[in-house]
Amino acid sequence: MTTFPFMRYRTSIADIFEEERQLELQLLVERMLAEANSYYGKIPKEAAKEINEFVKPEYIPLKRVNEIEKETHHDLYSIVLAATEVCPKYGQYIHFGATSSDIKDTVTALQLKEAKAVLLNHIDDLLLLLIQFAKENRDLVCIGRTHGQHAIPITYGFKFANFLSELSIAKENLVQANIYGKLSGAVGTYAAHGTTEIEKRVMQSLELKSLFITTQVVPRLIFFHFVSVILEVGGVLDKLAKELRNLQRTEINEISETFGHKQVGSSAMPQKLNPWRLERISGIVRYLRSLLPSTHENISLEHERDISNSSTERIILPQLITLTDFILIEMRGILSGLTINEENVKKNLFLLDGRQCSEKLLVKLTSTIGRQNAHSILQDLTKAKNFKNAVRVHPQIRESLSKTEIDEILNPENYIGLAPEVVDRVVKEIEEKINKQN
Amino acid sequence: MTTFPFMRYRTSIADIFEEERQLELQLLVERMLAEANSYYGKIPKEAAKEINEFVKPEYIPLKRVNEIEKETHHDLYSIVLAATEVCPKYGQYIHFGATSSDIKDTVTALQLKEAKAVLLNHIDDLLLLLIQFAKENRDLVCIGRTHGQHAIPITYGFKFANFLSELSIAKENLVQANIYGKLSGAVGTYAAHGTTEIEKRVMQSLELKSLFITTQVVPRLIFFHFVSVILEVGGVLDKLAKELRNLQRTEINEISETFGHKQVGSSAMPQKLNPWRLERISGIVRYLRSLLPSTHENISLEHERDISNSSTERIILPQLITLTDFILIEMRGILSGLTINEENVKKNLFLLDGRQCSEKLLVKLTSTIGRQNAHSILQDLTKAKNFKNAVRVHPQIRESLSKTEIDEILNPENYIGLAPEVVDRVVKEIEEKINKQN
Amino acid sequence: MTTFPFMRYRTSIADIFEEERQLELQLLVERMLAEANSYYGKIPKEAAKEINEFVKPEYIPLKRVNEIEKETHHDLYSIVLAATEVCPKYGQYIHFGATSSDIKDTVTALQLKEAKAVLLNHIDDLLLLLIQFAKENRDLVCIGRTHGQHAIPITYGFKFANFLSELSIAKENLVQANIYGKLSGAVGTYAAHGTTEIEKRVMQSLELKSLFITTQVVPRLIFFHFVSVILEVGGVLDKLAKELRNLQRTEINEISETFGHKQVGSSAMPQKLNPWRLERISGIVRYLRSLLPSTHENISLEHERDISNSSTERIILPQLITLTDFILIEMRGILSGLTINEENVKKNLFLLDGRQCSEKLLVKLTSTIGRQNAHSILQDLTKAKNFKNAVRVHPQIRESLSKTEIDEILNPENYIGLAPEVVDRVVKEIEEKINKQN
Amino acid sequence: MTTFPFMRYRTSIADIFEEERQLELQLLVERMLAEANSYYGKIPKEAAKEINEFVKPEYIPLKRVNEIEKETHHDLYSIVLAATEVCPKYGQYIHFGATSSDIKDTVTALQLKEAKAVLLNHIDDLLLLLIQFAKENRDLVCIGRTHGQHAIPITYGFKFANFLSELSIAKENLVQANIYGKLSGAVGTYAAHGTTEIEKRVMQSLELKSLFITTQVVPRLIFFHFVSVILEVGGVLDKLAKELRNLQRTEINEISETFGHKQVGSSAMPQKLNPWRLERISGIVRYLRSLLPSTHENISLEHERDISNSSTERIILPQLITLTDFILIEMRGILSGLTINEENVKKNLFLLDGRQCSEKLLVKLTSTIGRQNAHSILQDLTKAKNFKNAVRVHPQIRESLSKTEIDEILNPENYIGLAPEVVDRVVKEIEEKINKQN
Repeated sequence: MTTFPFMRYRTSIADIFEEERQLELQLLVERMLAEANSYYGKIPKEAAKEINEFVKPEYIPLKRVNEIEKETHHDLYSIVLAATEVCPKYGQYIHFGATSSDIKDTVTALQLKEAKAVLLNHIDDLLLLLIQFAKENRDLVCIGRTHGQHAIPITYGFKFANFLSELSIAKENLVQANIYGKLSGAVGTYAAHGTTEIEKRVMQSLELKSLFITTQVVPRLIFFHFVSVILEVGGVLDKLAKELRNLQRTEINEISETFGHKQVGSSAMPQKLNPWRLERISGIVRYLRSLLPSTHENISLEHERDISNSSTERIILPQLITLTDFILIEMRGILSGLTINEENVKKNLFLLDGRQCSEKLLVKLTSTIGRQNAHSILQDLTKAKNFKNAVRVHPQIRESLSKTEIDEILNPENYIGLAPEVVDRVVKEIEEKINKQN
Repeated sequence: MTTFPFMRYRTSIADIFEEERQLELQLLVERMLAEANSYYGKIPKEAAKEINEFVKPEYIPLKRVNEIEKETHHDLYSIVLAATEVCPKYGQYIHFGATSSDIKDTVTALQLKEAKAVLLNHIDDLLLLLIQFAKENRDLVCIGRTHGQHAIPITYGFKFANFLSELSIAKENLVQANIYGKLSGAVGTYAAHGTTEIEKRVMQSLELKSLFITTQVVPRLIFFHFVSVILEVGGVLDKLAKELRNLQRTEINEISETFGHKQVGSSAMPQKLNPWRLERISGIVRYLRSLLPSTHENISLEHERDISNSSTERIILPQLITLTDFILIEMRGILSGLTINEENVKKNLFLLDGRQCSEKLLVKLTSTIGRQNAHSILQDLTKAKNFKNAVRVHPQIRESLSKTEIDEILNPENYIGLAPEVVDRVVKEIEEKINKQN
Repeated sequence: MTTFPFMRYRTSIADIFEEERQLELQLLVERMLAEANSYYGKIPKEAAKEINEFVKPEYIPLKRVNEIEKETHHDLYSIVLAATEVCPKYGQYIHFGATSSDIKDTVTALQLKEAKAVLLNHIDDLLLLLIQFAKENRDLVCIGRTHGQHAIPITYGFKFANFLSELSIAKENLVQANIYGKLSGAVGTYAAHGTTEIEKRVMQSLELKSLFITTQVVPRLIFFHFVSVILEVGGVLDKLAKELRNLQRTEINEISETFGHKQVGSSAMPQKLNPWRLERISGIVRYLRSLLPSTHENISLEHERDISNSSTERIILPQLITLTDFILIEMRGILSGLTINEENVKKNLFLLDGRQCSEKLLVKLTSTIGRQNAHSILQDLTKAKNFKNAVRVHPQIRESLSKTEIDEILNPENYIGLAPEVVDRVVKEIEEKINKQN
Repeated sequence: MTTFPFMRYRTSIADIFEEERQLELQLLVERMLAEANSYYGKIPKEAAKEINEFVKPEYIPLKRVNEIEKETHHDLYSIVLAATEVCPKYGQYIHFGATSSDIKDTVTALQLKEAKAVLLNHIDDLLLLLIQFAKENRDLVCIGRTHGQHAIPITYGFKFANFLSELSIAKENLVQANIYGKLSGAVGTYAAHGTTEIEKRVMQSLELKSLFITTQVVPRLIFFHFVSVILEVGGVLDKLAKELRNLQRTEINEISETFGHKQVGSSAMPQKLNPWRLERISGIVRYLRSLLPSTHENISLEHERDISNSSTERIILPQLITLTDFILIEMRGILSGLTINEENVKKNLFLLDGRQCSEKLLVKLTSTIGRQNAHSILQDLTKAKNFKNAVRVHPQIRESLSKTEIDEILNPENYIGLAPEVVDRVVKEIEEKINKQN
């Protein structure tokens, strides 16, 4: 009923940000806080025991919290009030020494930590698929293209290995991105607790890190960094999506996606199989990258905090993470069904009739007929309709090279450099990294 | 269940983009298309009649459409199939001569037209409130501030009149922004209909404009323009929110929002009344402005169209419009409860003890003791603890001016220029515009 | 010596923003101000006369102004001081009743007005070229592409007419964008002049508009609007650049740019002719669109103004305008040398062997063998190696259609709808608009 | 002559990007390449010797390179040609086995490495100043503010320590950001060299890293990461600038910048001392953050590369780095002259008459008169004109607490928690880091 159209891009990662889950985490943090408060003698042991028993989702329904919020207009405080209601005796000790931001920022850290783990899993799925493609196509020669023009050959494995390498770099940056909880109180001075130990104990129990200093909130610099490294993943997927779209162009047609047999390409043009899922990935990343300036603006909160970041983050974080998860899953699906049309790969490779190998020919001829001479001959020949033939019959060239030699030189399949070996070293490095982490 | 946290910013304008409403509009366009097709003899009259009777939300539930889409993976075509199912005899004539984009772009145009009307209404609400504030405070002198520093006085009415003027400019730009439907077929050549008349007739019946030429889709340039003028409204609200936040600072305290008596400012600091609703507006606009580059990227679709704009728009348009509506409504609520603390306004006005009027004094003294002389005297005096007194007793100044004259010159309330008259002319102009439109 | 690498994208429009030109305009505004001040009796007639004689670039070198600024750290005030120095007697009347922003915003308005005129000229150059292309290729049938896949045919003229239409829309929006000067004083209250007439007179003499109310500065909303409509022009050029790059792909090769005979495509691959100028346009627009959020942020100045917009605008405005001018000129050059490789256009048109016309065939067969039947036959046939042949020999089809009929139906050249007529109406409309303005 | 107005923000770091310097670096890379080529027997030893002698800025003036580029329209190839001209015998061996992007990306890596070192130095300058401020004001109690409203106290040292911590985090991220050169040839396959050793040797001699795989270019993902971490520095400076501007507001006035004695605050209002340098920092960062989406767009290059990133980077990189350097230097200057107006700090601290300490009072009273009771009493009392007095004379409170106890509780100076200790640990940690790096 309140589902925006883009809910079609929802994955289960979004559950992390649903109100129910958020409430669960908030109650968890309040319980951990009570435990630490009692451990350090700030509240009675019995209070912590009671809070640990009652401050739980099964006793505090979201509905009740929302009712209270309608009056108080304060989301976190409503939870504290709802929690107080269900505690028979020690309700007043809930939230002791904490400010709302302590709970909220810590909950956000828990959510992002959980989301990060899911995203990393889905990145690994893609890495494994890319490794497989790189290996399988290690030696499948295809034309390399720069500026949309045929350049010199590579292999399909080499093409995939480049994406593999980029995605792995993005992943490493995400792995390094830390997320922090906080329990330093109203303006970060630990005034209510009078000690930093309670924060320390709670963070340990939640397996979160904390900073040496904060204001009322964790610096939004941390969030900017986190968002920007997630965007790196999106950037690589966008590049891959663009590549796979271009390779499917009717005139290129080197790869094909699997389409369901009932799927409709076009309501007017039944012959079409459109790469709309890849276009959708491009469109989603187009949206995601725009989130960067806003997230950066959030850094400059005023004084010990203003709350202008809150709405921005409520909007941005769940979308960023859900949509990134969505495109990771989509890309996995697309790659799983991808086939390479080897016949067309070969056709395109020979489309320019060996012209791409003229550099190699130039090098060979330099020693016999001189570079300047060779260069001017070749420049003329590239304009010939049938390049290879024209080379084969050119008298000066034939003096230096046999027909077989010419054919070998002009065969683009012989001009792939170390492409296969480079594939090997990239695959090896990333396989080792993945194995090490498990 | 699938409600992202930011659903808290939802207003009823979002209904326009819900799937149910979208389906309603899609069926409407299909019916109008059938009518026009039959009018121009493209399909039998009976077909149009049947389609007009059955192709309606009451017969075609969203659930059925979604079932079909799960197989076809094509949203619009699923509607056509679902509609065909319910037509006893002439189902094949549904969608005749149209391509999916014809229906989708036309539906989007209908949605944006409807949304625009709602937004304009809410803008007018705000304009009327600003007019009222401008009039009521036409003569309430307050200090003007530049660079966060006290400058020379204005009136509170003048302050509001500036916002009034800006919002009115933004509104005019939104009023001018056209939205277009299309029915020009698969690549915009009207190949299936063989005439432009059907498009014309459908657009007339839907009260939409169309362009002289399109590709498969309405150019996304149109959408960029529309989005950017809506952002102008957001820009003005952001500025106003910032102003109202600053004027509420503890040290300034010139205005107050009405807070509900059960509202909680801070869970740790009960004395606080935080302008969080205004901060929320700032945060939301911070998000909205980031949508501009993405929307601009959408302009560059490839060839006769690629569909990468679709996901971006699904995400951006409903959010942009809903959030803009939300902040308009919020600002209306905030302004409705706003009070001006006249005592503090006056206190701040006199905070610099008349130093802001030194320019005026300089002009007066120029004729008697010379500009250079006067300037150096005044520069010294501004450093005095009690400026007004120091001026009053300065021998050279006293030779030129009486104590009463000095007091009059140094009273900032006498230095507001044409502020009230400017308020009058702005209010008059905008009131006339609003009256004319009704 | 201080030439950033991107100075290679400079056009003569940048002169408008050079310090010398800016100083000229500032002095012009000061002279006009003096004239108006004397007209309304605010300063002696002789003062205005002297100011009009001496406050000129030939007496006030930039060097002197810069020297003064090094001490005062105030750019506009340094000009006032430098101007005062050269006036023998009445120097103190320079700048009378004005604040720095009065002069600066008015000068910016003059610069933008001048820049707008240049840009509009260069847009018209492009419109005329596009009109020519649209006319010349009105009937040149080519394949239309959606999702990078062959769809149904259009004509090359139709392709260009779409760009023509979009650029014309962008132009109209730029034409409508107003720029405003101001002379309303320190906080916009006309306190120093005590009248709005002086502002009015100066604006008339400079042929500028002014607003009914401002703060110390013209609202930055005006600038956002101006910047965003210029970006519309960039958006269209980006789309056109992308199209022309894609149409030059080795596998598509429908168009060619003219390359100078000494030009080097690639240092390693001499056979290549890369569309780097078009890629450069794409890259520049990629940069330009990012300026939107910053320009939007500038709207929210604090109170009667803060100066945070100033640096942003100093950086953004000259670049936006110069780079937009650069890409307009570049695109004109590229289009002037563009050739269409008709042979390849035709080859691509027939690449799918008539499969694009299966919709048309479907319609024809519906009446004889029924839609369902026809659809399932055709779906099978599209998988045949040689589609047209397979159709020709299919028994059920041959019962309904003669070979000639089949050939006619499957010839994509017969399936361009109203493409030529649509070209005519677009060209006519825009030619009329251009003629009317002259 | 070609100096855009924003050249006023130029620092000497911009020299790194000037054409002269760029040419120097390009020649350096060509020399190193020749050396490695000869080491691995790809070119004659004599060729490397000659290249090492002649391919130097003193023989190859920028002017000559530019002349050649006018004809070839290829910047890198023009350098190769100019270098060939000056080599008496072995010119043909220059650039052997390399593609333009090899040289260009490697040069960019050298530039960014150099720029990074300069920026890190200037960051350290700021860190040291912030450490000094944090230490000096470790115990200077001031009011903490959230939502622009007085919250509970902190110390000025604590305020600075927060910025210290954030800047240090940003610095660490910049330190970690790697930059890579490449020499893997036309499409990254090492086809011309047939070995990866030459790349390895050149990178070692230039003290650069290289990747395991690239296409024709280093992935632009690397650049996005680098740009985004530099933006983190800008984000912290923006936040600091905003804070220092707000603390200078006339009504707050807790800090002052040093202004030169001839400096002019306002041409119309001589009493004003405007924080325009800080506003300028805010404006510049406002611009910088907008560069993020463009830099992200650059990631998605097509196939083995397109060159659309080149113009974007030419524009963005020098500006990003120069402007970041400029604001670092500016902020250092501003901080160096910053004074804290302790009198006003104290005045503001006591502005709310102890109301900020009501939480503390509440805690004290809970044990004697019960929480609910205490809370409702206090809520009433906060509305009293003179809060402290009202508390002092309240009968129920006086039963529990003595006047001295009340005074101590309500003195905000006693409510700073662990602010000083937190300052100590932050300062200690960052001082150690800085010492370790030297």
